[in-house]
Amino acid sequence: MNYLEQSFSVKFDYKIYFTSSLFELGNPLLADFFKGRPSAALRKIFFVIDGGVTEKHPNLQEAIKTYFNQCQEVQLVPEIRIVPGGEASKNDTALFEQLVEAVNVYGIDRHSYIAAIGGGAVLDLVGYAAAVSHRGIKHIRIPTTVLSQNDSGIGVKNGINYKGKKNFLGTFAPPVAVFNDDRFLETLNDRDYRSGISEAIKVALIKDPEFFYWIEAHTAALAARDPESMNYLIRRCAKLHLDHIAGDDPFETGSARPLDFGHWSAHKLEQLSNFTVLHGEAVAMGIALDSVYSFLTGLLSEEKALRILQVLSALNFSISDPIIQIKDSGSAILKGLAEFQEHLGGLLTITLLTDIGSGKEVHEMDHQQLINASAYIAGFTKENTALNSIRHES
Amino acid sequence: MNYLEQSFSVKFDYKIYFTSSLFELGNPLLADFFKGRPSAALRKIFFVIDGGVTEKHPNLQEAIKTYFNQCQEVQLVPEIRIVPGGEASKNDTALFEQLVEAVNVYGIDRHSYIAAIGGGAVLDLVGYAAAVSHRGIKHIRIPTTVLSQNDSGIGVKNGINYKGKKNFLGTFAPPVAVFNDDRFLETLNDRDYRSGISEAIKVALIKDPEFFYWIEAHTAALAARDPESMNYLIRRCAKLHLDHIAGDDPFETGSARPLDFGHWSAHKLEQLSNFTVLHGEAVAMGIALDSVYSFLTGLLSEEKALRILQVLSALNFSISDPIIQIKDSGSAILKGLAEFQEHLGGLLTITLLTDIGSGKEVHEMDHQQLINASAYIAGFTKENTALNSIRHES
Ligand SMILES: NC(=O)c1ccc[n+]([C@@H]2O[C@H](COP(=O)([O-])OP(=O)(O)OC[C@H]3O[C@@H](n4cnc5c(N)ncnc54)[C@H](O)[C@@H]3O)[C@@H](O)[C@H]2O)c1
Ligand SMILES: NC(=O)c1ccc[n+]([C@@H]2O[C@H](COP(=O)([O-])OP(=O)(O)OC[C@H]3O[C@@H](n4cnc5c(N)ncnc54)[C@H](O)[C@@H]3O)[C@@H](O)[C@H]2O)c1
Ligand SMILES: [Zn+2]
Ligand SMILES: [Zn+2]
Repeated sequence: MNYLEQSFSVKFDYKIYFTSSLFELGNPLLADFFKGRPSAALRKIFFVIDGGVTEKHPNLQEAIKTYFNQCQEVQLVPEIRIVPGGEASKNDTALFEQLVEAVNVYGIDRHSYIAAIGGGAVLDLVGYAAAVSHRGIKHIRIPTTVLSQNDSGIGVKNGINYKGKKNFLGTFAPPVAVFNDDRFLETLNDRDYRSGISEAIKVALIKDPEFFYWIEAHTAALAARDPESMNYLIRRCAKLHLDHIAGDDPFETGSARPLDFGHWSAHKLEQLSNFTVLHGEAVAMGIALDSVYSFLTGLLSEEKALRILQVLSALNFSISDPIIQIKDSGSAILKGLAEFQEHLGGLLTITLLTDIGSGKEVHEMDHQQLINASAYIAGFTKENTALNSIRHES
Repeated sequence: MNYLEQSFSVKFDYKIYFTSSLFELGNPLLADFFKGRPSAALRKIFFVIDGGVTEKHPNLQEAIKTYFNQCQEVQLVPEIRIVPGGEASKNDTALFEQLVEAVNVYGIDRHSYIAAIGGGAVLDLVGYAAAVSHRGIKHIRIPTTVLSQNDSGIGVKNGINYKGKKNFLGTFAPPVAVFNDDRFLETLNDRDYRSGISEAIKVALIKDPEFFYWIEAHTAALAARDPESMNYLIRRCAKLHLDHIAGDDPFETGSARPLDFGHWSAHKLEQLSNFTVLHGEAVAMGIALDSVYSFLTGLLSEEKALRILQVLSALNFSISDPIIQIKDSGSAILKGLAEFQEHLGGLLTITLLTDIGSGKEVHEMDHQQLINASAYIAGFTKENTALNSIRHES
């Protein structure tokens, strides 16, 4: 046949640094990073920060300015841009356009850097703007939430929402570096802090049994926001995510999606709750549902299913919120199954558990068993609450 | 130091098919392409066509509909979108938004395809919309100009303009396939037809001396639009581009840009002419200038420089348009040098010739020698015109 064939590989590499107080003058990490990448070209760096972060860290902008006064490897763009934190930043396309405009006005070219400091939402927004400006400005991520430090901020995806559709616009574009600074986590509220833990439980359940048992042994410490335990959790979870990305299909051209364990119902729940339930909270509920379903359909032992429910409860996740309960076959949650199937392009693929640490793909779910699983979780929580109050009394 | 390291490679491969009458029912190429990529998911295909193409090929939309009536591997989206041809398509961001909206409305997901038929500008627009929708819809390119079949349409870049800045927004995103159909070239006007040849001359001059001598031997056939010669030129030029992309730095993370030979002045010329001079025409002028400059600064023999000028003239490129002439050190063209330097991030890198087929990078250019080169070209053209009229008379 009459054709030419093109074939090449592109190598991507970057490091995820773990540090405390990244912008303290005595911390050479960031300055050393730039020294390690010398360049004949004039390089600028433009910072964009999550408004939720600057609110709790009012001296951050000053600290950055002072830091780059000392570090002359790159030229700090005098404006430090603040964008609203959370999903709002991904819903407002004007914010995206203003970032692109800043690239234009400040003359930020492909030798230069755009750094984002914030939660997963702000990182997704800024990462997208960086990825498409001049076909890709070098991007540095400084994640400030548990979720973004262990998952969203260390990976290769970015995106914004469009007409209410999550991540409708985005690219696969690895950062040049990620700096995880544990001091940022101190100012998170309890819900945001906790909700980042559920993705760690999820990845442990499908890939790393030891990690799950470690979490099980540290639920009290994690619930009490012990920094050392959290640092360990973030690092181990980050490593699992990195290996997953590197190992399989970094830019997700295939259709296997093991990391979607617990997610088909979570997506629907977030939507049903009008996004008052956080993603991580919904994922905790979804993990509970699919774990018990795995037990009821004979894949997983009851003991293992119960240990999973126990860990989720001990971390204070509400896994039997009335909103998640599947009372009958007319339940709105069940619609999530069809929507997830459509989202996957017509072929339903759901990961279930055969053991702690091992997943198995199935292509259908039985509605009646889902109803039973939901009832089982409601029962478990009642007992468990009863148990807890007995413990308290004793 | 405290870090995790991420490292992975992503493999990209696609074929560039050469055919005639792609949508003729008897041509199985496109249907076979889809048969060769079976999928359990429902796949759609959305066509976007250059208005300049539909104008000259009024039956094209019907032909596509008939073709996909027979080929049930993918489901044709009933609307076939027509967008204005040429740079206008890249200047109007509303067109980009309308494409994204179509992806939304027609439910085109990552299993589906967006196909673009048109010149380089329309391919760049559609390629960008495909690349960022759902983080990348599979994209098929069907280039219809000489330039897009031998260069822009077969590579890995896309983009749109923003506030008058060329390709300000874009990504590196390889297509899943390219179909070069030579029948489209028949309806190009002479200027568009010719201007696509200059990038072939450029790449021959820096990489492939034999190809240059082949072009030299076929200037008359190419000027007369002989299809067989043009097919050979496109295929060989496409191969050189593909090898360049695969070999060096596919996503251009470094700063070497050998394919920018002849381009520093070309960019300025397009701008000075208010874009009445086509890119390929400007590149022809730029090649002439840098080739003679290479001779005057002792890198290239005069004989070789003259052969280059001769080839450009024989193809009817106006290489001494008054607009390109550098009369003195106040010439606007010379500003192009500083702008190109800025564009490169501060370090000027210009490719010159040491021989036909071999380039050499330099980091400065002498203004006086550029003035001399310009005068030399003006003299050459005069003589050459005289020569031609003598030949005509005899
Ligand atoms: N790109 C990916 O691969 C990927 C993966 C998973 C999730 N995500 C995205 O991540 C987003 C969720 O990210 P998230 O969980 O980090 O939450 P978030 O970004 O929505 O932030 C939650 C809240 O915390 C605030 N905040 C951030 N850091 C803080 C700090 N240190 N102290 C006090 N407040 C702080 C924010 O302002 C916001 O109000 C979603 O948009 C999701 O789509 C992306
Ligand atoms: N992505 C890349 O790697 C890359 C590389 C080089 C150039 N480009 C871009 O390519 C564009 C130029 O592309 P081009 O030279 O193909 O020109 P073009 O796309 O501007 O088209 C020129 C004209 O020809 C018309 N046309 C297209 N096909 C036709 C046909 N078969 N018959 C009749 N008319 C037809 C178009 O409607 C338009 O009016 C520029 O925007 C440039 O930036 C991109
Ligand atoms: Zn998730
Ligand atoms: Zn060019």
